[in-house]
Amino acid sequence: MDGYLGWPLAQHLAGRGHEIAGADALMRRWWVEEMGSVSAIPIADIDNRLVGLRQHTGQSVPFWRGDLRKYDLVERIFREFRPEAVIHLGECPSAPYSMMDREHAMFVQMNNLTTTLNLLFAIRELAPGAHLLKLGTMGEYGTPNLDIPEGLFEIGYRGRKDRVPFPRQAPSWYHWSKVHGSNNIMFAARIWGLRATDVMQGVVFGTQIDGMSDDPRLRTRLDFDQAFGTAINQFSCQAVIGHPLTSYGTDGQPRGFLPLRDSLQGLTLALENPPEAGEYRVFNQLEEVYRVPALAEIVRDAARSLGLNAAVAPVENPGAAIGRQDHHYAPDHRNLHELGYRPTYDMATEVQIMLRDLLPYRERIAQRQHVLLPDVHWNGEPRLVSPVGVPAKARHEKDRAARA
Amino acid sequence: MDGYLGWPLAQHLAGRGHEIAGADALMRRWWVEEMGSVSAIPIADIDNRLVGLRQHTGQSVPFWRGDLRKYDLVERIFREFRPEAVIHLGECPSAPYSMMDREHAMFVQMNNLTTTLNLLFAIRELAPGAHLLKLGTMGEYGTPNLDIPEGLFEIGYRGRKDRVPFPRQAPSWYHWSKVHGSNNIMFAARIWGLRATDVMQGVVFGTQIDGMSDDPRLRTRLDFDQAFGTAINQFSCQAVIGHPLTSYGTDGQPRGFLPLRDSLQGLTLALENPPEAGEYRVFNQLEEVYRVPALAEIVRDAARSLGLNAAVAPVENPGAAIGRQDHHYAPDHRNLHELGYRPTYDMATEVQIMLRDLLPYRERIAQRQHVLLPDVHWNGEPRLVSPVGVPAKARHEKDRAARA
Repeated sequence: MDGYLGWPLAQHLAGRGHEIAGADALMRRWWVEEMGSVSAIPIADIDNRLVGLRQHTGQSVPFWRGDLRKYDLVERIFREFRPEAVIHLGECPSAPYSMMDREHAMFVQMNNLTTTLNLLFAIRELAPGAHLLKLGTMGEYGTPNLDIPEGLFEIGYRGRKDRVPFPRQAPSWYHWSKVHGSNNIMFAARIWGLRATDVMQGVVFGTQIDGMSDDPRLRTRLDFDQAFGTAINQFSCQAVIGHPLTSYGTDGQPRGFLPLRDSLQGLTLALENPPEAGEYRVFNQLEEVYRVPALAEIVRDAARSLGLNAAVAPVENPGAAIGRQDHHYAPDHRNLHELGYRPTYDMATEVQIMLRDLLPYRERIAQRQHVLLPDVHWNGEPRLVSPVGVPAKARHEKDRAARA
Repeated sequence: MDGYLGWPLAQHLAGRGHEIAGADALMRRWWVEEMGSVSAIPIADIDNRLVGLRQHTGQSVPFWRGDLRKYDLVERIFREFRPEAVIHLGECPSAPYSMMDREHAMFVQMNNLTTTLNLLFAIRELAPGAHLLKLGTMGEYGTPNLDIPEGLFEIGYRGRKDRVPFPRQAPSWYHWSKVHGSNNIMFAARIWGLRATDVMQGVVFGTQIDGMSDDPRLRTRLDFDQAFGTAINQFSCQAVIGHPLTSYGTDGQPRGFLPLRDSLQGLTLALENPPEAGEYRVFNQLEEVYRVPALAEIVRDAARSLGLNAAVAPVENPGAAIGRQDHHYAPDHRNLHELGYRPTYDMATEVQIMLRDLLPYRERIAQRQHVLLPDVHWNGEPRLVSPVGVPAKARHEKDRAARA
């Protein structure tokens, strides 16, 4: 629960009176460090975070610092806490990170599959009524020339009909790890009668949730490196340091986006309205749909409205080769609305809030502005030199050795 | 190349003049031992097998005894042998084995995903023109109420059309591991321009290939335990020892079957007719389609024609819950036929050949007939006692400790 979504979600759920517990190996901190970067907004260490959480919510939150790939740990947590619901954010969430080389592809797929399988088996063995709420991604679907339904859909083929899962064409090893996990969860729900919700979220941005404390121990991280900084967060960090907004990423591909506060609103609604036993439920969650160049313009205009001198500068995109560039994009996203989901701020408003939060950290971001330009080639060309001048593989091995 | 298909394939390809090499950690032998069983037909150890292969084919076949989950080994093999094609049979091929418990589910998925990813990366880095020929399974498709195409298919949905991968609904952790692998291969072909063929085979049976030597060192294994013995092979082993043919397994579900010799014919045709660079090619390969009770009758009749006293006795099927029981089953299987594939013997003829091969080993099978009855529950109910009276998990751990 130490990540970008998990930490504010813990505050949000505790604030709503849920009795919560958390587990995390703190890997997100390592991964961002490996990319040569830090969170733009300074974050407290986990011990201080937990003290802040207790003081703010009045709830002493049990926390296990450890690796959910180890079943012994998962089992211990389930025996001690007896969860009624499990929110699974314990995956490495970066496509570029997974595309760097074999080690990273393997790590991302094995990590994400192992944590998911461990949680599925722990639920079956120790908490069979518990609801597994899993963070998926809209990226699992790829870029089909079709509307994208939520869950099973009916197709006709050669005169016959059936309701089947929507075909996936994911654009990275990371996105495939999410597809593999979704398939495993769908299967577990079917054979064991587990309750599961798979929330296919768009790209999340922003720094705030409703009712977030000003206590610096309670703020969530905000990344701007090429692997863990998502497009709008990156642009916002560029805007506050006067760096040109380097419009790249998915280029011509339209994508859905949503603010952090609405990402958590969706997860909370799913949590508080669990599916039936045996039901594998899919929510698509996205609000505004944009192409990346249009995003850059929104951030530029929001920055200018705050008196910042921002400009857009397109750069070559090493990750642009995967999938149709200018495709039909009309995913269904009704299921959460039926549970009462209501989007809050529009993108321009939320970006202004984020820019104000980031302004005090201009110096911190500017010191690491070399991480703002992408060099992970998605077609498999080697990334010879990392942003900090050390070959990525050697750095990764050094980091791994340091951790061991 | 030490398994049921790999070993005869090595002989077959060497006999056709291909220059071959092999790698295997010999895990199939451990797995069957773990199930309390042995190959019905005695097989030589790998060293004697390789000597026999050299004497029979005149080719000294390089062999690496080791684990393809280790990339160092894969890299070494590629540097030393420089393959033009890679036939990937390095997966654990058992649905019941994967359904026993968490450890087995995890082992099967991680083993199968890791070997496949390692081979994909080795091809890209060290043999980018090489053809990856991967053994899939018809089981990946599940039991849709639709014709099953080979590869992409065109669907219409809400007035739009696209060519997309066929949706998968696999019935076991093992089958899902194959789906995850197929997805990873499809992706690698797309981003790196690799050549790949995914051969979705039906259930293979039989003891013989064309031109197989009588040398006992060259015979392939034939399993009859519940995890590694496929339906027809099991029935045949039951028939030769006068055990009732316990008709269970997939019960009402129609499945496609093919003899060992035609399994290898299909792989050979795929090998000798590689796809284009960047092409992910799917072959469905099956011949006769039967429900399991009908199979039992075919084996019974073949056994009676040899003067054996055989009878069918239906038993409860703990694995029967997954998928529709009486469904439409009409998979396309044209692609291999277009390359010249011609089925050889019909099932009854091939079963007679198998029964004759098995008759000398009646005693060997009869000693282990306790492994013929299934007790792996696919709905997740624990398998309390293994066929040899030792809890499976304890036995597995003991085995693992013994190997370490």
